[in-house]
Order: sequence, then structure tokens, then C-alpha cells
Amino acid sequence: MNFSSTLLENAVAEFSRLPGIGKKTALRLVLHLLKTEPAQVDMFAETISKMRREIQFCQQCHNVSDHALCNICATPARRQDLICVVESIRDVMAIEATQQYNGTYHVLGGVISPLDGIGPDQLNIETLIQRASNNNVSEIIFALNPNIQGDTSIYFIQKKLAHLPVKVTAISRGIAFGGELEYADEMTLARSLQNRLPVENFVRQ
Amino acid sequence: MNFSSTLLENAVAEFSRLPGIGKKTALRLVLHLLKTEPAQVDMFAETISKMRREIQFCQQCHNVSDHALCNICATPARRQDLICVVESIRDVMAIEATQQYNGTYHVLGGVISPLDGIGPDQLNIETLIQRASNNNVSEIIFALNPNIQGDTSIYFIQKKLAHLPVKVTAISRGIAFGGELEYADEMTLARSLQNRLPVENFVRQ
Repeated sequence: MNFSSTLLENAVAEFSRLPGIGKKTALRLVLHLLKTEPAQVDMFAETISKMRREIQFCQQCHNVSDHALCNICATPARRQDLICVVESIRDVMAIEATQQYNGTYHVLGGVISPLDGIGPDQLNIETLIQRASNNNVSEIIFALNPNIQGDTSIYFIQKKLAHLPVKVTAISRGIAFGGELEYADEMTLARSLQNRLPVENFVRQ
Repeated sequence: MNFSSTLLENAVAEFSRLPGIGKKTALRLVLHLLKTEPAQVDMFAETISKMRREIQFCQQCHNVSDHALCNICATPARRQDLICVVESIRDVMAIEATQQYNGTYHVLGGVISPLDGIGPDQLNIETLIQRASNNNVSEIIFALNPNIQGDTSIYFIQKKLAHLPVKVTAISRGIAFGGELEYADEMTLARSLQNRLPVENFVRQ
């Protein structure tokens, strides 16, 4: 690309560092900002900068937070004895969107993946064991993505939890709602058969 | 979306104001920035802010510039008697990328489009007429997108230029290189026939 302005070129370079944003998209975004009021562009820049500098990670569950304890951990109405273990902040948002869970979370910050160089030490596993050692915790629910890394992480962590009087569960897997048996992979279908449930569970109440 | 942090929510809201960026993409970008060094995020924010505050539009051609005159207008080697009229900065970049043009430009900032409420007064037409009135200008080349708005703009502007001793041309239209006659629209094919050129033009030199 031939830029007649270094200011423009630098702005495009900064945008194209973001994941999934190529040079052409970056240029489109920058040209949009050029048409935007300077005060609004400053607002955009300040909001991003401030977010990165001031955001905290919840001391208890490692979720993003504006305070030392996140909104979820700090809400007395949420069951502190229930801990849902997830890979990332995004999974917390996905589960919160269902409005079906009123316990707390524990964000691992990833899953065990030796090929990517991610071992247990890089994840928030130690703090989970500490939380689980607390007398008041009754159940730990694994809600990790159903793949080898997720299963490896469940296996590793549940071994560390084995000596504790805590119930350990994982969210069920099977054919997704609206999915078709015909197109399900064999692994999913086989597990779905193995882990069959009483019909009562499917009758709406 | 359920955000556990207002800082995060605001950053996502700012990103999703950009064209073509939805809430999900905005969240992905913000989570990427969360993993980036704070100093680098500040650099991103500052570059954008600085670009918007300090960028100028060339006094002569209205292209973006770091100075009062853009690099192209300020280069003595470029022919000042040749003015290529384009719709936007992006078109300047596209033509510069061909490395086949060594004149100057004139960025209209849009095209006449009554349906979008864009009339001649909102475009940089007056300054073009002034430039063309200068004795030293020999040719004005229209390089607007081939559509009704582009053609309307050419028609309007060339009428204003009619009294001046300036040659007025427009870039040729026809079947694109690598295109197929079979799939060309009738308008393009008909024009391409009408404006046929001597074969010498197609022999590589």
C-alpha cells in the first residue's frame, strides 16, 4: 500500500495487528475514524487504554472484574458452594447468558495442551484446589470444551481433587438441540447412548 | 451479553461502533488486547488518537497528508499539469499502486448522489475548477467508479470545465483483464465495442 501520510500508515499498522484484521480492513476502519469527530476518536482510544490499565482479575475466580472481587463472586445470592470450572471469560459469559446457573465460577485461563506448551502450572489450578479444600464447597462442575485438551484437564484436576469430600461433575455431552443423529460424529453418538437419561428429564415442566 | 466488568463492556461497545465489527468480533478484539502488554495497548490508543488530531488534508488535492501539501503534490518530479480526479483517498492508493501515473490528484470526497443527499456543494468541486483555471493545467482525467453517480459527477463537472482550454478525459471502461466476454454485462460489452482501440495498444512493448 502507498500511503501519502505516515500518521495514516501507523494507524493502519496498529489496527492490522489485531487478530483477523488484515491491511484492507484496517484501512477501512481508519478511514471511518477519519470521518468521526476527534473527540469521539479520543474517547475510543481512552476507553481501550483505561480498560487495559484498570481491569482486574477476580482474586477468587480469575474472571475479569472492575474490583478485587468480581460481580458474581461478590453477589450474596449466588451459591458459593458451587464452582463451575471454565476455560475462559467467554465461557462465563456463555453460561451466564443461559440464566440457569446461580453458583460461582473458576476461570482456568486455558486448558492443558502440551503441544502448545501449556502445562498445569500456567493455569489457575492451584487456586481451584485451595477453594475446593474449603469446607463450604459441595460441588465442582467442569464446563470445558469437549476435546482432548479439555478431557486431559478434567482428568488431571479431578485427580488432584480426589482426596477432598467434594462432588465432581461435568456438563453432559450429546446431540445438540436441533441437531440430527445422521450427521453426529460417532464419538458423540456413542457417548450419548452410553449416558442415556430417564425420559422424565425431557418432559417440559 | 453479560459482562462482569464495566470497563470490558465499554471497550466492547467502542469497538462495535466500527463498521463491520459486531459484538462478538468486538469481544474477541478486546480479549486479545487484554492479553497484550499495557504499554502496547497505550501505543495503539495513542497512535489512533494522534492520527485523528494531527492528520491534515492537502490544501491542493484534499488527499490525506502529514503536512499542508501532500507528498504527491509536493514532489517536483510529478507533473502538476495533469490532474486525476478520484472519489476517495482509497482510489489514490489504488492508482499509486499501479506505478503508471506521475501526475497529481484531486480527491472529490465522494460523488454526486441526490438519493444519499450528496450534492455538488458537499464535494471538492470548486477547488478543482480553480486548479483547472490555472494556465499550467493541460489535462484532467476522471477516474471515478463506473456507475450512475460517477457518470453524473463527470457530466456535472465537465460542464463547469467546458469554458476552459483544458483537455478532459476519463479512464477507459471495458472487459477487465482476465475477465470473460461471456459473463460481462451488456452495458460493459457494448461500450467496449464502441470504444474499440487500435491493436497496437495491446502489443506489449
